Amino acid sequence: MFSKETYAARRKVLKKEMNSGLLIFPGNMEAGMNYKDNWYPFRQDSTFLYYFGINHPDLYMIIDLDEDKEILFGDDLTPEDMVWVGAAEPLANLAEKCGVETVQPMSKLQDTLQKAKQSGRALHYLPPYRSNATIEITDLTGIPIADVHQNYSVEFVKAVAAQRSIKSTEEIQELHKAVNITASMHRYAIKNTKHGVTEQQIAGELQAIAIAEGGNLSFPIILTKNGQYLHNHPTQDVVKNGDIILCDCGAETSMNYAGDMTRTFPVAERFSDIQRNIYSIVLDAHETAIAALKPGYKFIDAHMLASSKIVEGLKALGLMKGDTNDAVNAGAHTLFFQCGLGHFMGMDVHDMENFGEQLVGYTQHMQKSTEFGLKSLRLGKELEAGNVLTVEPGIYFNPYLIDSWKAQGKYTDFVNYSEVEKFKDFGGVRVEEDFLIDQGGVKLLGDPLAKTIEEIEELKNA
Amino acid sequence: MFSKETYAARRKVLKKEMNSGLLIFPGNMEAGMNYKDNWYPFRQDSTFLYYFGINHPDLYMIIDLDEDKEILFGDDLTPEDMVWVGAAEPLANLAEKCGVETVQPMSKLQDTLQKAKQSGRALHYLPPYRSNATIEITDLTGIPIADVHQNYSVEFVKAVAAQRSIKSTEEIQELHKAVNITASMHRYAIKNTKHGVTEQQIAGELQAIAIAEGGNLSFPIILTKNGQYLHNHPTQDVVKNGDIILCDCGAETSMNYAGDMTRTFPVAERFSDIQRNIYSIVLDAHETAIAALKPGYKFIDAHMLASSKIVEGLKALGLMKGDTNDAVNAGAHTLFFQCGLGHFMGMDVHDMENFGEQLVGYTQHMQKSTEFGLKSLRLGKELEAGNVLTVEPGIYFNPYLIDSWKAQGKYTDFVNYSEVEKFKDFGGVRVEEDFLIDQGGVKLLGDPLAKTIEEIEELKNA
Repeated sequence: MFSKETYAARRKVLKKEMNSGLLIFPGNMEAGMNYKDNWYPFRQDSTFLYYFGINHPDLYMIIDLDEDKEILFGDDLTPEDMVWVGAAEPLANLAEKCGVETVQPMSKLQDTLQKAKQSGRALHYLPPYRSNATIEITDLTGIPIADVHQNYSVEFVKAVAAQRSIKSTEEIQELHKAVNITASMHRYAIKNTKHGVTEQQIAGELQAIAIAEGGNLSFPIILTKNGQYLHNHPTQDVVKNGDIILCDCGAETSMNYAGDMTRTFPVAERFSDIQRNIYSIVLDAHETAIAALKPGYKFIDAHMLASSKIVEGLKALGLMKGDTNDAVNAGAHTLFFQCGLGHFMGMDVHDMENFGEQLVGYTQHMQKSTEFGLKSLRLGKELEAGNVLTVEPGIYFNPYLIDSWKAQGKYTDFVNYSEVEKFKDFGGVRVEEDFLIDQGGVKLLGDPLAKTIEEIEELKNA
Repeated sequence: MFSKETYAARRKVLKKEMNSGLLIFPGNMEAGMNYKDNWYPFRQDSTFLYYFGINHPDLYMIIDLDEDKEILFGDDLTPEDMVWVGAAEPLANLAEKCGVETVQPMSKLQDTLQKAKQSGRALHYLPPYRSNATIEITDLTGIPIADVHQNYSVEFVKAVAAQRSIKSTEEIQELHKAVNITASMHRYAIKNTKHGVTEQQIAGELQAIAIAEGGNLSFPIILTKNGQYLHNHPTQDVVKNGDIILCDCGAETSMNYAGDMTRTFPVAERFSDIQRNIYSIVLDAHETAIAALKPGYKFIDAHMLASSKIVEGLKALGLMKGDTNDAVNAGAHTLFFQCGLGHFMGMDVHDMENFGEQLVGYTQHMQKSTEFGLKSLRLGKELEAGNVLTVEPGIYFNPYLIDSWKAQGKYTDFVNYSEVEKFKDFGGVRVEEDFLIDQGGVKLLGDPLAKTIEEIEELKNA
């Protein structure tokens, strides 16, 4: 945990932004895999962590804005409970550590909220993303379950998102740590993904690195010779010389801050010529986008810039044709680059995605697009100093999409399908790093990791 | 997957047991960790796997008993969906692989069930254990959400539990495989848990072994120098010579069959004298219980037998006193052995625990106890050939329980608290293996793993 002053100061800012009513913070519960008590690894809610720092299940926090009270709701363990889970810190201690003064049993929570509601006070909650929280909010607030997902407090979301979007010095330290653990996972993958191993053998070891550092993965590992599928999971497939491997993985620290990097590398000692060509285009797009980032610059413009670089590169290889700007404006590049350039990162790897991308990554005057490609750009708005984000352009030869769009005659002014079809078994390339926006422009998080073709080949063969 | 005939034959048995109405099989959905789309590793529902074998999210199966129809509900992916997850097998192929003839879009599911309900037919479902399934059952059947957990079909549970309790030859092969992977995890832990490593360093590697074999963990790893807490998770604590480590872990195969074993071993090269003494008592209880198991024998009797052995051993060490039978009947041993001797194992590590232990591990004429200790015995009833179960006695010196019961003057006729207090920092010992009940009695699953003090010391120092 950070200091109690840190959490109290964060809550002070939030309370100033919000007018009246009660703010409800549901802590996460344990989540059953194949029966109720066989749990997935516990993951606390990030907003709960941000304002209170307590990494334990089965808790709720309430901030009563009108009476200026903060209350932890939960139940201490009995000695018989401790048979299973061991010594739990008393809730009074946990509350003290984050500067909360009042502890009440969970059985009082519903009553507290119902009374507030009856006296006409607002009950503010954030959009729930776990079904148990949806049910709990119905039980606690009386809002019908079908309406829970519409009735969240936009004011509450905006206040939290504004605050969490700007990282503090201590948060940036944790993010550096997360990215450095992430880089060590990639170093392992680049060195050890050799002819004859399976994707899952390597993926298991990457998870072991994250766990050994005291945390876990920040998202499910993508490690695949089929990198053209953006979120493809590792399989029991054996990789072979000639394959190009896309590895997108990240560690989460014990304080729940995320790293998220991608490297793409050959199984063989060297990139093939064709792999070098595609990789070079992606790396150029990546570097061009990074160079443009600074406070006040719109992230969507970096996305368009990277898209243009991809079109130019693919034109030089004969896979695309026509005017670059026209191609990008038409969306022809989305045959190869189907997703967004990057996203905010923090305690959530896609930071605050549960609040909805419109409220987090766009503004009142800037609506998120619904078009293929841009609809997957989670962040479009002007950057601010203190933002932390990823930059991750890619080129993906998805055979289903190629077949489908060719059959529809889509973008024939810009796409040389006869050339593109030769790449249907190529795979995919992505290069991704994590950055802090600061007054000077942009700073890499973590220590540099091999990224150029030469650096990757050197690391592979070291 | 097993053969389509296997799944069809299983459903044939089930359909014979059930009279009329519709059987609802909700497949599991992806489960979000810290936002909706950041998923925990997908785990299909075990009953869905048992009858249909399809290991994909977002599916429902319906068996219409009256019209003798089986229907898969789900939606095929578009080429645009495949951008993210890659080539998905068409649902028609998946249905064919398990011998189901009809596929319908998910949008037809609610209508199908509502129509059946309106014509007075029963909608049978099993107890849901994920909140999203609870909400879905409300939406599909019209049962109010507060009643969903009471209104499940006992008849359906009994039919499925009877069938899944008896393992087929092909299931036993998978269980052997799961236990052998589990044993290799233990071999790694015994050899590598040395002075100066952290619990999480070892735990990460154990998970890597399970993942490399194509599956994952069957439950969260317990690897701790504080084995007195039964489900304690690994921490960043460094282990030291003198510590005794309890490692309880298991692999799940790619077919989702579980292993579950425990070994307890010293960090140092040798067990200390006092560690040898406690270990020997547990091992004696373990062997005695195993020797008694056979078809027709009540598992609760093996639990009592192991409990007696523990009392005898602790009497010999001066920690307990009085008549052994009286002590066990009074429950005095539960100060040290607070849980049950074992449980069924199959696709779920606690097989079918979501059905409730009364319906799975007990009978109409044998109610599960509510007393401390016995209330945690998940299996009490007579064994049958084909049952697969764990045997896992233990001795746990829980300082909170010792202090609490001493202060209450509990079991002073049987417990020498002054001696017991000297063990408050000892830790815990458990020995656990997995067995098949067959006509001849009992068969160890998997190849034997070091278990005696001599074998464990030899493996550690090999």
